[in-house]
Amino acid sequence: MTIDFNHLEEVKIDGFKGGKGELCMRSFADEKCRIMHGVLRPGASSGLHCHSENSEILYVLSGAATFYCDGEQEIVRPGQVHYCPMGHSHYMENNETEDLVYLAIVPEHH
Amino acid sequence: MTIDFNHLEEVKIDGFKGGKGELCMRSFADEKCRIMHGVLRPGASSGLHCHSENSEILYVLSGAATFYCDGEQEIVRPGQVHYCPMGHSHYMENNETEDLVYLAIVPEHH
Repeated sequence: MTIDFNHLEEVKIDGFKGGKGELCMRSFADEKCRIMHGVLRPGASSGLHCHSENSEILYVLSGAATFYCDGEQEIVRPGQVHYCPMGHSHYMENNETEDLVYLAIVPEHH
Repeated sequence: MTIDFNHLEEVKIDGFKGGKGELCMRSFADEKCRIMHGVLRPGASSGLHCHSENSEILYVLSGAATFYCDGEQEIVRPGQVHYCPMGHSHYMENNETEDLVYLAIVPEHH
């Protein structure tokens, strides 16, 4: 199956998972995987959340993501992956002056 | 956790899963996810395989991938995702004259 994000509806979310600012998301989901293309605006963030039965793999396409994973800060740049394994918690911020554009996968491990 | 593929060893594989030609792979794996950066040479392919307990999400970074998923052909281009859900079979070919560069995730669904 081919997923072309340009053919998926863009949804604007204000304060993703309790964060602040705007996230523009195009996503596909079935029972096992969510596959998302996201644009997080400068100054925006997601709220802290735990991946109790799934994990998250986020590949930065442009901009930079500041993650806090189990309380540790990491800055993830284009071509790098942030991985939040199952059972761990994280949130992200866009502390740059340009959009953070990313691909994210949330697979269920059950 | 940040995964920087430039810090992972590149492994050259001849005939990935019974395919032909060269695949250059940098990969991270734990019990739940394999996260890979691959370069499939022009004319190279992977062999047909089934994702019985996992799935595969492959994002094309450059070049183009020709997939055969459950016998159906699809051509996947930069910015698009090929998704092989759990229980399905696929293989890919690089039928172009340039390298196929991709990010692939294989999450376990158990």
